[in-house]
Amino acid sequence: MSDTIKYLLPETEIPKDWYNIVADLPEPPPPVLHPGTHEPVGPDDLAPLFPMSLIMQEVSTERYLEIPGPVREIYRQWRPSPLYRARRLEKVLDTPAKIFYKYEGVSPTGSHKPNTAVAQAFYNKEAGVKRIATETGAGQWGCSLAFAGAIFGISVEVYMVKVSFQQKPYRKAMMESFGASCIASPSDSTEFGKSYLAKNPDSTGSLGIAISEAVEVAATNDDVKYALGSVLNHVLMHQTIVGIEALKQMEMAGEYPDVVVGCTGGGSNFAGLVFPFIGEQLRGGSKIRALAVEPAACPSLTRGKYAYDFGDTGNMTPLTKMHTLGSTFVPPGFHAGGLRYHGMAPLISHLKELNLIEASAYHQNACFEAGVTFGRAEGILPAPEANHAVKGAIEEALRCKREGKSETILFNLCGHGHFDMQAYSEYFSGKLEDRNYDEQELAMALAGLPSVAV
Amino acid sequence: MSDTIKYLLPETEIPKDWYNIVADLPEPPPPVLHPGTHEPVGPDDLAPLFPMSLIMQEVSTERYLEIPGPVREIYRQWRPSPLYRARRLEKVLDTPAKIFYKYEGVSPTGSHKPNTAVAQAFYNKEAGVKRIATETGAGQWGCSLAFAGAIFGISVEVYMVKVSFQQKPYRKAMMESFGASCIASPSDSTEFGKSYLAKNPDSTGSLGIAISEAVEVAATNDDVKYALGSVLNHVLMHQTIVGIEALKQMEMAGEYPDVVVGCTGGGSNFAGLVFPFIGEQLRGGSKIRALAVEPAACPSLTRGKYAYDFGDTGNMTPLTKMHTLGSTFVPPGFHAGGLRYHGMAPLISHLKELNLIEASAYHQNACFEAGVTFGRAEGILPAPEANHAVKGAIEEALRCKREGKSETILFNLCGHGHFDMQAYSEYFSGKLEDRNYDEQELAMALAGLPSVAV
Repeated sequence: MSDTIKYLLPETEIPKDWYNIVADLPEPPPPVLHPGTHEPVGPDDLAPLFPMSLIMQEVSTERYLEIPGPVREIYRQWRPSPLYRARRLEKVLDTPAKIFYKYEGVSPTGSHKPNTAVAQAFYNKEAGVKRIATETGAGQWGCSLAFAGAIFGISVEVYMVKVSFQQKPYRKAMMESFGASCIASPSDSTEFGKSYLAKNPDSTGSLGIAISEAVEVAATNDDVKYALGSVLNHVLMHQTIVGIEALKQMEMAGEYPDVVVGCTGGGSNFAGLVFPFIGEQLRGGSKIRALAVEPAACPSLTRGKYAYDFGDTGNMTPLTKMHTLGSTFVPPGFHAGGLRYHGMAPLISHLKELNLIEASAYHQNACFEAGVTFGRAEGILPAPEANHAVKGAIEEALRCKREGKSETILFNLCGHGHFDMQAYSEYFSGKLEDRNYDEQELAMALAGLPSVAV
Repeated sequence: MSDTIKYLLPETEIPKDWYNIVADLPEPPPPVLHPGTHEPVGPDDLAPLFPMSLIMQEVSTERYLEIPGPVREIYRQWRPSPLYRARRLEKVLDTPAKIFYKYEGVSPTGSHKPNTAVAQAFYNKEAGVKRIATETGAGQWGCSLAFAGAIFGISVEVYMVKVSFQQKPYRKAMMESFGASCIASPSDSTEFGKSYLAKNPDSTGSLGIAISEAVEVAATNDDVKYALGSVLNHVLMHQTIVGIEALKQMEMAGEYPDVVVGCTGGGSNFAGLVFPFIGEQLRGGSKIRALAVEPAACPSLTRGKYAYDFGDTGNMTPLTKMHTLGSTFVPPGFHAGGLRYHGMAPLISHLKELNLIEASAYHQNACFEAGVTFGRAEGILPAPEANHAVKGAIEEALRCKREGKSETILFNLCGHGHFDMQAYSEYFSGKLEDRNYDEQELAMALAGLPSVAV
């Protein structure tokens, strides 16, 4: 029996640095603009929201940033994470391709999110911060910051998109188990939430709305900072620990990927795996195809406009240039709540414009079908978000079969689906719908983008 | 920061043999008896239910039994499992004790159960078996056999205790994701189920009832075998891989446990960790205290009678001598569904009679309190079953604090609680009840034990 192979690095191989792709890019990403003046923001403009150490990481152009000792100590609980060769899946697909996956579901909360949650909590703790407000979609990020807050003794307040809050009560229970509080958004705990509810009393929320609520809490309370689980440069950089480990593990396996695949919502797990490989390429190493897979119902990379936009619905954040569906766009409900964001990380958007990455989009039933195929072969049921990466990887493996090519495919299995079994139940009972976004609503949201003279 | 330490063995250190404690016992366990004749059963009597290779393991007196290559290949996906020193928990408890835990939640289904599921599926596959019937309580075992069945291409049919079937729909979804079928027990799919339902139409089931249904399916269908997730000698032996690894990992840590703790329902995770340590002791090595922790609402070891009894409610199984509450005893509902069994593994019961182990019992609120303390410190939320072991370990650590002793405590964190967050929600909202069993019902069940002239 040719079985699944695990490549595990010793603890001594936990990376000592995060990788900052900005240092290797042929041109720098566009500046972040102040929402009022449309002038580039400086570190001080962000100081109400983040500790200065994280702001300096956000704007850094250094190639490597040292991971603090205490953060590495905590990473040791689950890192280095395993990399597997999915030989049982290869056999089921009858493909000549070699399929590898990096598994981030081994973390305490079951996804890649603690990689940045622990780092952010550490820097906040160092800056004397006692309380952090944040938002969460499906709850992976909220649970992870709650976990990190428990370790560092920081109080964590999570605004959770209402539709997910209702669909996934167990994520709330997990946050509370770690001592955090979890509030359904839109809520009446913030001015923005109240005003939004007044106009839309039946709103089931969105990440854009929840971000506005959490940002408001941080901006209006001196003792509260804000934290984001994706999108920003420093968040993507914290996740590069995934790709740095994977580079070493592929070397252990004696292979180098032709294609590297990740799912994209805000973009952090994709960037985490892919950036170190693109960095190798930019510094003269082997070329890879980097493939971002997004939900067809919220397709920022494949259908969005590359333009300056707000990160939130309340238009409180700075303006960043990114692939966006418009900050007023509310995607239809689907189970990969972590991918229901109107914009894409500015760095990933920039790489897309530089033709360093590709993107494709799939509806959820096709992704769940891929996830079940994977699960039956490999024994791990992926999160609905991760099913998009699985789908992308399987499509590549089937292409290799058609073309008779023995390419090497690597994807990021960024989390397990233990908290998403309701979605699997619906998939099996045929109740899962592939909803499309409203074309007219998208057109209106895009027409409403702020006009920026850049 | 003194942080949690992980002790991870390389893959080459996956044990090559299971350990059979029978070889080292000062006296052999009492024989298993035929339910009709009360004579010792022979291998042929068990042949309708199990493949002969497993029957020979059940009655083996060899000290070590080789783990087949294909089984070790599959174990590699998650084994060797990590052993941690819980330094963050030690700090919270302010104890001089050193607390270690072996973590089996890293398996594909989140518990220790795949250790035996994979082995049992392998031997059934070797014997040409195409279909296996089994029962499950909380669902950990059913999911694990479903996973193993998916790998070996064996069809799996799971009778799940009705109260858990209703409380934990996501366990059913997981079994289905692996391609197995899951039926609420008592069901009308079996003669026993139908007759039981006729008398008790509102029955929410028990493990004893579900075992009767699965055994009936195997006994009355030539192409179906039966599998059990705990209690039997061969199941406990498959789990010793946990303790064999832990012995090596404690050596890595430069410590040897004074106390080894596990939760007990049927007894397999407790035996898996503890038997290799007791084996060392029986062969002249260091003495340990082995502590079994059970639910106060189903206290077979602390309140049961050591007597011959049936393993199931329908009285289809052979008679084994064990600590039992009586096969007609139906424990009150509580969340650790995996521990709701009227009997204790015969081997563990025998060790209790030989004074090689101790036992204690706790109600569920105290166990959840311990689990939350552990989770906030260590980042892992244990399954309700595992919370009993956590409670036992914390009590020992607090005793060490009172006595000023720096003892070394090792416990088995046999599974995570991702599928049990409803129980945590109820705990936090104060809705969790500590139910007692009915003393009169217990007395009646004990009075109804079969009379065996041994």
